[in-house]
Amino acid sequence: MGSVSSPYKRHFFVCQTQRPEGSEKPSCGQRGAAQIYSRLLEALDRHPELGQEVAVSACGCLGLCFDGPIVVVYPEGTWYARIEEADVPEIVEQHLVHGKPVERLRFKWQTAS
Amino acid sequence: MGSVSSPYKRHFFVCQTQRPEGSEKPSCGQRGAAQIYSRLLEALDRHPELGQEVAVSACGCLGLCFDGPIVVVYPEGTWYARIEEADVPEIVEQHLVHGKPVERLRFKWQTAS
Repeated sequence: MGSVSSPYKRHFFVCQTQRPEGSEKPSCGQRGAAQIYSRLLEALDRHPELGQEVAVSACGCLGLCFDGPIVVVYPEGTWYARIEEADVPEIVEQHLVHGKPVERLRFKWQTAS
Repeated sequence: MGSVSSPYKRHFFVCQTQRPEGSEKPSCGQRGAAQIYSRLLEALDRHPELGQEVAVSACGCLGLCFDGPIVVVYPEGTWYARIEEADVPEIVEQHLVHGKPVERLRFKWQTAS
């Protein structure tokens, strides 16, 4: 038996923030985040062989509220924005199962440098 | 202006799961997770210079429910277990501010190999 710092090759965090109707900012919850989270969990159920290396967790606000629904995947730090339920099969097949981020759905963080 | 995949050097996720009294499993929420989350957010407020490189998010169940409260920090994949509010200043000073995990609080994942 050995010890590792983290067992997961990929850990998906899916924002589930729900703001009331009429709020100043939109929220991922108003834009289908619960369905996206469910689809990812179902995919994990269909792939029990990944249970030791992939995790899917709900999370609170990740910022980028105007670009939700937001999903971030660590350790590699892939940020997905404006995901629709129809995008989920591609994320599952390419990224969750095979470890390859879906480039067209990535949020492009801008840096000053 | 450049584009980066993820802007954060350290992203803390603090489990906030709250199970009803009498549940089969304990939950981080029953063990002070809300206070730990608040203390980490307050620390971030006191260090505005870290605002672009450190994030703190609430999250749902991370597993390890019997060893909570649980905090995981990515991208390096540091898992903290059985954290008490009194441990937070050390986590803040060493890890959140200076990027150095607090070894004595790490959860030791066991592997078969």
